[in-house]
Amino acid sequence: MTAYKDMTLDQRRAEYAALQTAFADLKAQGLKLDMTRGKPCKDQLDMVSDIFDMLKEPEDYIVDGIDIRNYGALSGLPEAKRLFANLLDCKPKQVFVGGNASLQLMYGVIDCAFIHGRLNSPRPWCKEPVVKWLCPAPGYDRHFKLTESFGFELITIPMTSTGPDMDAVEEAIKDPAVKGIWCVPKYSNPEGIIYSKDTIVRMASMKPAAPDFTIMWDNAYCIHEFDGDYVEFPDILHQCKKYGNYDMVYEFASTSKITFPGDGVACMATSEANLEDFEKWIGIQTISYDKVNQQRHVLYLQNRAHTLKLMKKHAAFMKPKFEAVLSTLDREIAPLEIASWSHPKGGYFVSFDAMPGTAKRTLALCKEAGVAMTAAGATFPYGIDPNDSNIRIAPSFPPVEDVEKAIAVFCTCVKMSALEKLGV
Amino acid sequence: MTAYKDMTLDQRRAEYAALQTAFADLKAQGLKLDMTRGKPCKDQLDMVSDIFDMLKEPEDYIVDGIDIRNYGALSGLPEAKRLFANLLDCKPKQVFVGGNASLQLMYGVIDCAFIHGRLNSPRPWCKEPVVKWLCPAPGYDRHFKLTESFGFELITIPMTSTGPDMDAVEEAIKDPAVKGIWCVPKYSNPEGIIYSKDTIVRMASMKPAAPDFTIMWDNAYCIHEFDGDYVEFPDILHQCKKYGNYDMVYEFASTSKITFPGDGVACMATSEANLEDFEKWIGIQTISYDKVNQQRHVLYLQNRAHTLKLMKKHAAFMKPKFEAVLSTLDREIAPLEIASWSHPKGGYFVSFDAMPGTAKRTLALCKEAGVAMTAAGATFPYGIDPNDSNIRIAPSFPPVEDVEKAIAVFCTCVKMSALEKLGV
Repeated sequence: MTAYKDMTLDQRRAEYAALQTAFADLKAQGLKLDMTRGKPCKDQLDMVSDIFDMLKEPEDYIVDGIDIRNYGALSGLPEAKRLFANLLDCKPKQVFVGGNASLQLMYGVIDCAFIHGRLNSPRPWCKEPVVKWLCPAPGYDRHFKLTESFGFELITIPMTSTGPDMDAVEEAIKDPAVKGIWCVPKYSNPEGIIYSKDTIVRMASMKPAAPDFTIMWDNAYCIHEFDGDYVEFPDILHQCKKYGNYDMVYEFASTSKITFPGDGVACMATSEANLEDFEKWIGIQTISYDKVNQQRHVLYLQNRAHTLKLMKKHAAFMKPKFEAVLSTLDREIAPLEIASWSHPKGGYFVSFDAMPGTAKRTLALCKEAGVAMTAAGATFPYGIDPNDSNIRIAPSFPPVEDVEKAIAVFCTCVKMSALEKLGV
Repeated sequence: MTAYKDMTLDQRRAEYAALQTAFADLKAQGLKLDMTRGKPCKDQLDMVSDIFDMLKEPEDYIVDGIDIRNYGALSGLPEAKRLFANLLDCKPKQVFVGGNASLQLMYGVIDCAFIHGRLNSPRPWCKEPVVKWLCPAPGYDRHFKLTESFGFELITIPMTSTGPDMDAVEEAIKDPAVKGIWCVPKYSNPEGIIYSKDTIVRMASMKPAAPDFTIMWDNAYCIHEFDGDYVEFPDILHQCKKYGNYDMVYEFASTSKITFPGDGVACMATSEANLEDFEKWIGIQTISYDKVNQQRHVLYLQNRAHTLKLMKKHAAFMKPKFEAVLSTLDREIAPLEIASWSHPKGGYFVSFDAMPGTAKRTLALCKEAGVAMTAAGATFPYGIDPNDSNIRIAPSFPPVEDVEKAIAVFCTCVKMSALEKLGV
């Protein structure tokens, strides 16, 4: 295969005509494939559904003297705190266990800061003339939308192969209006990058101008290797404490991709002072979370070693789908020199950088052929990718045959839009 | 028995001395009784714990084409909406089904109004110089604390035997800074009052100065009769719509006292326009609620008729406890003419009005004798009862023998504090 940039106009036209024929054939198949969201497939959910049988007898609902069906234990069951502390390598006293959504806990932290201010805030954030927020991009659209919804000004920080560009971060935090940063430190969404030790140390030792600067450390994929063994990862709370920034970070995780996206358990880990402050405000909005579901997870997951065995079983479903995507891209697209993409070993996404100016067109073509993908731009603040290049591929949900079909469609569309850009 | 007001000083002194002896005996028993919160007892929870066995096979988790374990269906399962619409006498399209806490949905409504404004808001409430909120009192402490936490100015509205004093409400809403009111319309917390038809019509037909005035209609005890049959109650959405105020009201309910306080399902009902607005903002903070638990409730509760049968079984636990409280008060306290109290037929509380200036002292004495009750003042805005009179009695949780012991202690303390006030 010849790289597109080395083709003559006639060669590109011939290639494009062939792709148009192939595209028409694909369209004629009437496909309806969905790769929009990173969610486990039905087989993965069936695999763990025996968690719902963990509690049987009336006495199973009394745990550490707490009736888990009644009100109480706002910050979570002690054993649930122990479990998450074990998964995250932190201490149970640093852990708050919530409901089924870590996003809800993240919202809670920002919402409390907005209305009441954080521990070291000069004033509630709603009283600030402007709040700015650092968004390493490409990143997670729901993170960006959350801070956008509070009217914060989103500042794009470029991602590097070792995490956010820390030079850019260190420069940005000189502005006291910059109040925080989003991070997905392990198997970042969408690139699957693991922050390097150097990045983590620089992050934990920052000296921001804002006394209430906040790291939102969304460790969503903390044990989510699908290729190879569990990769050890530094505990950010310990790192921040070491550098005198103990109150600067909130870490989040959940079992959304360990048990169920809709019926898992979410947690937050932070300093004791932050926890005390958070509980005071979160206690205004709820009396307690679903402790029965917390206890199911305690009994089912047990500890990190046991949970890692379960993650190996998830990996058996995930890996073939990622291999289908990556092997097809490596074979079909790499020689054309029109795009690049990540080769993650964990998480839920492949990040694909199409030829600048072609991401939207590529996804419009995909849609025409019945393949739904995350909207172009979604991985950038305000949904606007300045290069119109990044596309998030989420191969986890469809069966592997459908992933193969979808990625074949995708490759055709990537090629067509690149040729259109180059001129045909 | 002689009314205390008719006693001579010597008689009061003799009575007080006898009570002191009785009190010393009670203290010596080393009681540890808790009547602080309205929550079901363990037997009630055991009774409904077979709800956890409703889902067994992998196919049980696919409902109306939705995998209830995965992401999706933010506003709730269609059948869960149908169930709550049936319980509340409204329409499924008016219903949002959430997580385990109606308080969380209430917080969500106020939080969205604070940050973004409601449909007809001139500006977000956080940009208003002052927001005032009507609090019929005695009322529910968590309601008052919620609006207090946003910095709203709480305005006490007296409760009457037919609901909030509507003359006072109609006067107050002439102020455009008054943005809303809390209501527990059926078996009000703590008095157990059912709002009259006239109150409801006046409420639904209000013409507040604020275009975004909000009725928070917490129908927490909508089917919670413990004495006698289900009492029909007008649908507030229909009433508000009839008077051109369709967007003015948000109704809330939950299964916290039908199945479990910690693991029930909460819902909200409001106009379609309000729902659309709410979903837009709530979708920022969560992807979806626990639909497995929603489906358990759909299968277990089925419909109103079936749920009312279950409520009769709850009533069998509740009624003896309320009878223990009321018969003791009627026998021990009524002849002394030092206090009055409600005689509810539903809900979770008895509202007790001690001699003015004695509520705190009464509860301090109770505590000394090992009986914990809801703090005096809790039923009023800012936790301050101007008369230091109202006490909320919550007899549902302890076994009936403990309720009897606790109320005996309570009567002794009520008498002692009244005598102290009268002079001994």
